[in-house]
Amino acid sequence: MTTERLQQQIGFILEIDKLKRVLRQTVLTDASRPENSAEHSWHIALMAFLLQDYAAGDIDPMRVAKMLLIHDIVEIDCGDTYCYDEQGMIGKYEREQAAAKRIFGLLPADQSAELLELWEEFEARETNDSRYANALDRFQPLLHNFATEGLTWRDHGVTADKVLARNQHIADGAPDVWEYAREMIREAVARGYLLESKKSPL
Amino acid sequence: MTTERLQQQIGFILEIDKLKRVLRQTVLTDASRPENSAEHSWHIALMAFLLQDYAAGDIDPMRVAKMLLIHDIVEIDCGDTYCYDEQGMIGKYEREQAAAKRIFGLLPADQSAELLELWEEFEARETNDSRYANALDRFQPLLHNFATEGLTWRDHGVTADKVLARNQHIADGAPDVWEYAREMIREAVARGYLLESKKSPL
Repeated sequence: MTTERLQQQIGFILEIDKLKRVLRQTVLTDASRPENSAEHSWHIALMAFLLQDYAAGDIDPMRVAKMLLIHDIVEIDCGDTYCYDEQGMIGKYEREQAAAKRIFGLLPADQSAELLELWEEFEARETNDSRYANALDRFQPLLHNFATEGLTWRDHGVTADKVLARNQHIADGAPDVWEYAREMIREAVARGYLLESKKSPL
Repeated sequence: MTTERLQQQIGFILEIDKLKRVLRQTVLTDASRPENSAEHSWHIALMAFLLQDYAAGDIDPMRVAKMLLIHDIVEIDCGDTYCYDEQGMIGKYEREQAAAKRIFGLLPADQSAELLELWEEFEARETNDSRYANALDRFQPLLHNFATEGLTWRDHGVTADKVLARNQHIADGAPDVWEYAREMIREAVARGYLLESKKSPL
């Protein structure tokens, strides 16, 4: 019995190794290569307990860390969708839900159900934990973008108004972090890392 | 006040991005490239809650996950020491302790002290949490080695007796996982992934 359960768990553990090969648009802070979704998940899971004091409302930082450890696993089947790619966002949730069912479904039923629920909570952004988790998921790429003088912003011609609109819900999960992020976005424009939109200047 | 604290935390968050560039001897399960220490930490932090039922004694799986998220950060200064490199192991703890003080020291004092203590607990292997954490840290490379038909074992001419001796303390942290690992090591020898020592056959 233990053996069958362990076998399923190991099947899942081997499967998720593939997340290390899913590349994001974000690059490492030294701009040497694109970041992958596994190491990104590590980074923000750690941020979950480091920045817990800035969360809006009561949260369980370790539950948030767990949520962040699993939040991108669906990308094994779906790839990473760049957050400014409006076309790519269409049908994203449905594709990712099918992926979540397949991949978490490799686990024993109790663990599979738990992780599926946790992933859905992350996506829905309706609880304090998931709002805080989503804030960190958005904030980390901003840090990387600033550290690399706006490399991926410049590559994709993204403007400041889009960055502000797209990341605004950092405010829902971690207001002080959003204050910091807004200041950084302003500074990025001042330094020429990020273009100001002519239609909607800062 | 919040700003100074947040500034220190962000300094640490940016610094640890470097762990994504520390390469291990282990390769990904498709053998496409070496694994880095950040994605390795992600993988085993996730294993901490998936395999919690096999831990020896009472453990706190989320505390173990936290320990595993930070356990390799010292490698930013010291690099990864291959566990079968006896020469490299000399003075390792002292070098890593200096690294832990420098890197965790970037954080506000309370968080710095907490992570330093957690890292020392991991290294000492005297608590249930740290014995279980160490078991996972050892078990995951075995899975990768088996999945790649013993790639790094063969590259380094490692023999089965060394693999058994080196990984034996998986038994202290997770006895059922050790049973599974032993079976896998036997199977690796049978399939020719791992050499049997002539002096000490299995």
